[in-house]
Amino acid sequence: MKNVTVSVIMGSDSDLPIMKEALDVLNDFGVGNEVLVLSAHRTFEATREYVMSAENKGIKVIIAGAGGSAHLPGVIAAMFPLPVIGVPIKTKSLDGLDSLLSIVQMPPGIPVATVGINGAKNAGLLAVQILSTSDQTLAKKLSDYKTKQKDSVLAKTEKLKTLGYKKYLHSQRL
Amino acid sequence: MKNVTVSVIMGSDSDLPIMKEALDVLNDFGVGNEVLVLSAHRTFEATREYVMSAENKGIKVIIAGAGGSAHLPGVIAAMFPLPVIGVPIKTKSLDGLDSLLSIVQMPPGIPVATVGINGAKNAGLLAVQILSTSDQTLAKKLSDYKTKQKDSVLAKTEKLKTLGYKKYLHSQRL
Amino acid sequence: MKNVTVSVIMGSDSDLPIMKEALDVLNDFGVGNEVLVLSAHRTFEATREYVMSAENKGIKVIIAGAGGSAHLPGVIAAMFPLPVIGVPIKTKSLDGLDSLLSIVQMPPGIPVATVGINGAKNAGLLAVQILSTSDQTLAKKLSDYKTKQKDSVLAKTEKLKTLGYKKYLHSQRL
Amino acid sequence: MKNVTVSVIMGSDSDLPIMKEALDVLNDFGVGNEVLVLSAHRTFEATREYVMSAENKGIKVIIAGAGGSAHLPGVIAAMFPLPVIGVPIKTKSLDGLDSLLSIVQMPPGIPVATVGINGAKNAGLLAVQILSTSDQTLAKKLSDYKTKQKDSVLAKTEKLKTLGYKKYLHSQRL
Amino acid sequence: MKNVTVSVIMGSDSDLPIMKEALDVLNDFGVGNEVLVLSAHRTFEATREYVMSAENKGIKVIIAGAGGSAHLPGVIAAMFPLPVIGVPIKTKSLDGLDSLLSIVQMPPGIPVATVGINGAKNAGLLAVQILSTSDQTLAKKLSDYKTKQKDSVLAKTEKLKTLGYKKYLHSQRL
Amino acid sequence: MKNVTVSVIMGSDSDLPIMKEALDVLNDFGVGNEVLVLSAHRTFEATREYVMSAENKGIKVIIAGAGGSAHLPGVIAAMFPLPVIGVPIKTKSLDGLDSLLSIVQMPPGIPVATVGINGAKNAGLLAVQILSTSDQTLAKKLSDYKTKQKDSVLAKTEKLKTLGYKKYLHSQRL
Amino acid sequence: MKNVTVSVIMGSDSDLPIMKEALDVLNDFGVGNEVLVLSAHRTFEATREYVMSAENKGIKVIIAGAGGSAHLPGVIAAMFPLPVIGVPIKTKSLDGLDSLLSIVQMPPGIPVATVGINGAKNAGLLAVQILSTSDQTLAKKLSDYKTKQKDSVLAKTEKLKTLGYKKYLHSQRL
Amino acid sequence: MKNVTVSVIMGSDSDLPIMKEALDVLNDFGVGNEVLVLSAHRTFEATREYVMSAENKGIKVIIAGAGGSAHLPGVIAAMFPLPVIGVPIKTKSLDGLDSLLSIVQMPPGIPVATVGINGAKNAGLLAVQILSTSDQTLAKKLSDYKTKQKDSVLAKTEKLKTLGYKKYLHSQRL
Repeated sequence: MKNVTVSVIMGSDSDLPIMKEALDVLNDFGVGNEVLVLSAHRTFEATREYVMSAENKGIKVIIAGAGGSAHLPGVIAAMFPLPVIGVPIKTKSLDGLDSLLSIVQMPPGIPVATVGINGAKNAGLLAVQILSTSDQTLAKKLSDYKTKQKDSVLAKTEKLKTLGYKKYLHSQRL
Repeated sequence: MKNVTVSVIMGSDSDLPIMKEALDVLNDFGVGNEVLVLSAHRTFEATREYVMSAENKGIKVIIAGAGGSAHLPGVIAAMFPLPVIGVPIKTKSLDGLDSLLSIVQMPPGIPVATVGINGAKNAGLLAVQILSTSDQTLAKKLSDYKTKQKDSVLAKTEKLKTLGYKKYLHSQRL
Repeated sequence: MKNVTVSVIMGSDSDLPIMKEALDVLNDFGVGNEVLVLSAHRTFEATREYVMSAENKGIKVIIAGAGGSAHLPGVIAAMFPLPVIGVPIKTKSLDGLDSLLSIVQMPPGIPVATVGINGAKNAGLLAVQILSTSDQTLAKKLSDYKTKQKDSVLAKTEKLKTLGYKKYLHSQRL
Repeated sequence: MKNVTVSVIMGSDSDLPIMKEALDVLNDFGVGNEVLVLSAHRTFEATREYVMSAENKGIKVIIAGAGGSAHLPGVIAAMFPLPVIGVPIKTKSLDGLDSLLSIVQMPPGIPVATVGINGAKNAGLLAVQILSTSDQTLAKKLSDYKTKQKDSVLAKTEKLKTLGYKKYLHSQRL
Repeated sequence: MKNVTVSVIMGSDSDLPIMKEALDVLNDFGVGNEVLVLSAHRTFEATREYVMSAENKGIKVIIAGAGGSAHLPGVIAAMFPLPVIGVPIKTKSLDGLDSLLSIVQMPPGIPVATVGINGAKNAGLLAVQILSTSDQTLAKKLSDYKTKQKDSVLAKTEKLKTLGYKKYLHSQRL
Repeated sequence: MKNVTVSVIMGSDSDLPIMKEALDVLNDFGVGNEVLVLSAHRTFEATREYVMSAENKGIKVIIAGAGGSAHLPGVIAAMFPLPVIGVPIKTKSLDGLDSLLSIVQMPPGIPVATVGINGAKNAGLLAVQILSTSDQTLAKKLSDYKTKQKDSVLAKTEKLKTLGYKKYLHSQRL
Repeated sequence: MKNVTVSVIMGSDSDLPIMKEALDVLNDFGVGNEVLVLSAHRTFEATREYVMSAENKGIKVIIAGAGGSAHLPGVIAAMFPLPVIGVPIKTKSLDGLDSLLSIVQMPPGIPVATVGINGAKNAGLLAVQILSTSDQTLAKKLSDYKTKQKDSVLAKTEKLKTLGYKKYLHSQRL
Repeated sequence: MKNVTVSVIMGSDSDLPIMKEALDVLNDFGVGNEVLVLSAHRTFEATREYVMSAENKGIKVIIAGAGGSAHLPGVIAAMFPLPVIGVPIKTKSLDGLDSLLSIVQMPPGIPVATVGINGAKNAGLLAVQILSTSDQTLAKKLSDYKTKQKDSVLAKTEKLKTLGYKKYLHSQRL
């Protein structure tokens, strides 16, 4: 059984359809992970207890997603000594600009590694990159992943050359 | 000796020149207060200990000022059952829009009563208003305060009528 | 019959689906309240008459919701000596950023306790917090409310642990 | 002695260095005017009394300047039946974007004719344009004014052609 | 037959569903008007010819609506000596913030009286207000209009008092 | 067979429904073109190889569309010596403001000719304008195009005059 | 004597310290140019006359700089059939965001090639790039220019390696 | 001699006064590092060569700072398989909002770990945190660092309690 090295926490279960993409990446790369709904505000004590004990349990990276006054990643970073990755969740009113600024503008001394709005997939990949600084197997998988990405884009260019843009567009709509 | 009923907390002592205006208002109204520098991130545990015991010490309102990823007011609101007033401090890069959004866009269940950017004076007055919902003496002082405000503006209109705007401007520059 | 201590005013009845959440909170906490549609602009005199007499009727907190050039909370705060809570309503064109800035950036001397965009629920809770600074029964109810909030989040984390995120997501979609 | 037909009101005498430009324009065009410091919030009743009686005194246009939660123009427009021109004053924190949105985003039924941030000169000109819809003498002066504007720009192009841009720049710096 | 004193111009016929509200107001007040689609960019010469001859035809106010790089109101103001009212049309990408800034931030010397985003109704009312500075009949109609506005809001407050907010909401949804 | 002088590149095939408008313009004007999906990030090397050889193949203008951290146009401009036109694609979270700023705010030395958000049609026209600085046939076609644009707008004004705005609106909805 | 092929126009001579950088680039590359102060609003007719005759005089590219409601580039683009480059000038109130949006968000059919805020140097380079699509000598000069840029950056990296960052910083301050 | 494991790259030597803080942190923690000035645009090929060989040289984390169209971190992330940390540099025109969005809004597949505007110190700390996921000595140093941070804040609260806020403010000004 795999060791759990990455923890994915979100402020509300309404964030799960976004945060799922981080979990999918971690699973695809075979990185042991666990997922929790914990609010910086509503379950303050439970968040504190979990984060305080996370390092001892072997957690090396925490990914935290939150929206609006998105304090969760920063609050976790205040207590967790290793890297915290923040995912700003898109909000109904300000499109996630509030989430982004609340997460990224941390004071000196307490960094949060912030990805783009709703960028949970990149949060998963960043966690894998961090782990692969000391794990050759993961590094190899990352390299394969990048190759697949590249091939997928090049296949589209090839298809576009073959079909022409009008037929390509038509095929997209089907 | 007065009871301390309002606590003024700021994330950094660089916020003191702004937060001082809240303290001045509280002192002018004779409201017992105390002031602390406590960071939501750098002194997480000390913040928690202070806030957890604040209600029992008789604190009825906490005013918290912070800038950037301004988590302090929200983190205090997560632990303190009574009103928390948030003061967004103007920042060097985004002029305090980051502070404002980080403080005001709280999730349902955990309100922070937010005032304008660098609005520490209004934070002090709001604390006085809150206390005056059950304190007739304070309510009377507030009424006198509003009268003084009004008289000060009307005196300017009177002076403007007497001097004309050019001489008035000249007198402002002196 | 309960005393009416909180008044909920909105600039237009199109704001009622949002402002309803403040009323629900007040009713859940057993706080006597009344609700009015009054425009700072279209019914200027009626607004003035209502607000001028509100304190004598026993109103201790006014919650005001408005959108766009959202002057209603500030205009009320100019006339009402006790706390005014402002709710910025989301607008069609600028997503409520206009409402937020119009409400929160009040000049020194006239605070409005601002909550997040469409944050009527938090406005209701803030009113309860303000009243509970001098009402032990309300304070007890608030404490119970926070416990229920916490339990609800923790139940989700528990369910997530049991189901795994894929089944959890599936159950959300049903 | 000229009739006073335009009133210039500002929320604070700190706005006078900007609002002065509206007064200068009105005086240059020979439009009778008066100037007041009146706050929508701090001198609510005095503002109301002044505005309610303004039409009977012969005021045809009110120019109002304010910053931040800039309610003054809108509050005046709620009470004054004729055109109200709003001047958003640049603020320290949000550069006047708050003032602009607070003034321009008025609800249907209560227009404020808004000019640019710190655009007091244009407010004065707009008042002159409004009066000139029924005043041929003013219309003639406006036409002369536009010609002077044009000539001033063309003189610069001429000078630029003669000097070349390097000498022109040098002459600007002197 | 009525004299045409107000012209309503829009940059594209896709703006007509918005600009219609200005036309409705003008017609309700019995103000003679005409409506054109003229682009500052695509029909530059036709725009110039129309505007240059507008004053002689008796036009006293031009209302211009445009979106994005919304140059139409400013270009008209460059050529028309009397008041120009600008209506920023909401855009698909930036919600009309681009239209608003393009219209309102005019240089000194060339004012555009700007209303809120999609504020065509207020543009119509502002035109009526401008005309009523020299037309007692219109002034009387404006006063009646404001009374009707007020009564409509007060009827809602009355209905809300009678029904309670839950039944009121229910009746809104029908 | 026409020489290919314009290349249209997009960061993702999801941009094709927008970028198609540039291709349509190029085809309408008879400008030889080719279209590729190439990511600045995912197919870095392929992008480099293509761009490095583009000038020798006769490409005179490259149009590049991208969204979010829209690096593609700038990366191409770093390698291609002739004009690069950037099309900011509207994004889900920030409406394309991120794309616009990422593309337009290039450092001194490396210009990108930026058009509006989703402005692919204008990108095509700008490419045609650039080529027509040395191609009289294209210049003539551009002039015809502008005439057609103008006639189309004038026809709408004519139709509006004939139908009146209410019937016109009705005809739009059909 | 060189043919004048590029025209540099600015809305106000206060823009000259910025626009000068475009002129310097054109002169460095030996591109014949002329410079004018012409306002889209204040000298509307002179602008029209100049632009209408520009193509016949041999102008192939117009660079236009303006701030605020920056209509100048778009108004020129409405009349000039060849490429127009827009330079958004930084403004006092909104930092040039208003200028940028007013220039870049042009409607379909009338492109303006927009560079960054205060990006006059890049505007000059873009004009050179456009001309070099049919001028081998210019193309060669551009290639030399890029090499010089590169060498200048690499020299800094070399110096940084030699001095270390502390001495380098010290040398910058001298 | 220490192995170089972190590389600090900036787009311009004008960023060095900010990026210096990352270097100071790395040196304080004893992390081997090197610093380069490399532009994504002006020294495209040199950037590519450096980054392509970085992993083989033992670099485990790259910190990249850039402003405006801040493509450097993203371009490096396209080529470097391990974590890239992006530092948005504050710009003259848009205060670094452009830099932030250009860096953080990366497409799926290519993450950049973004810190706050001018947050070079946090970039250095984040690099240390990443390395400490596999280095117990660094982890211990981080823990000591956090303790020192905490003690420094608590000392300020103590001093504030002793002096009172007025004397404290006075002492700050000295």
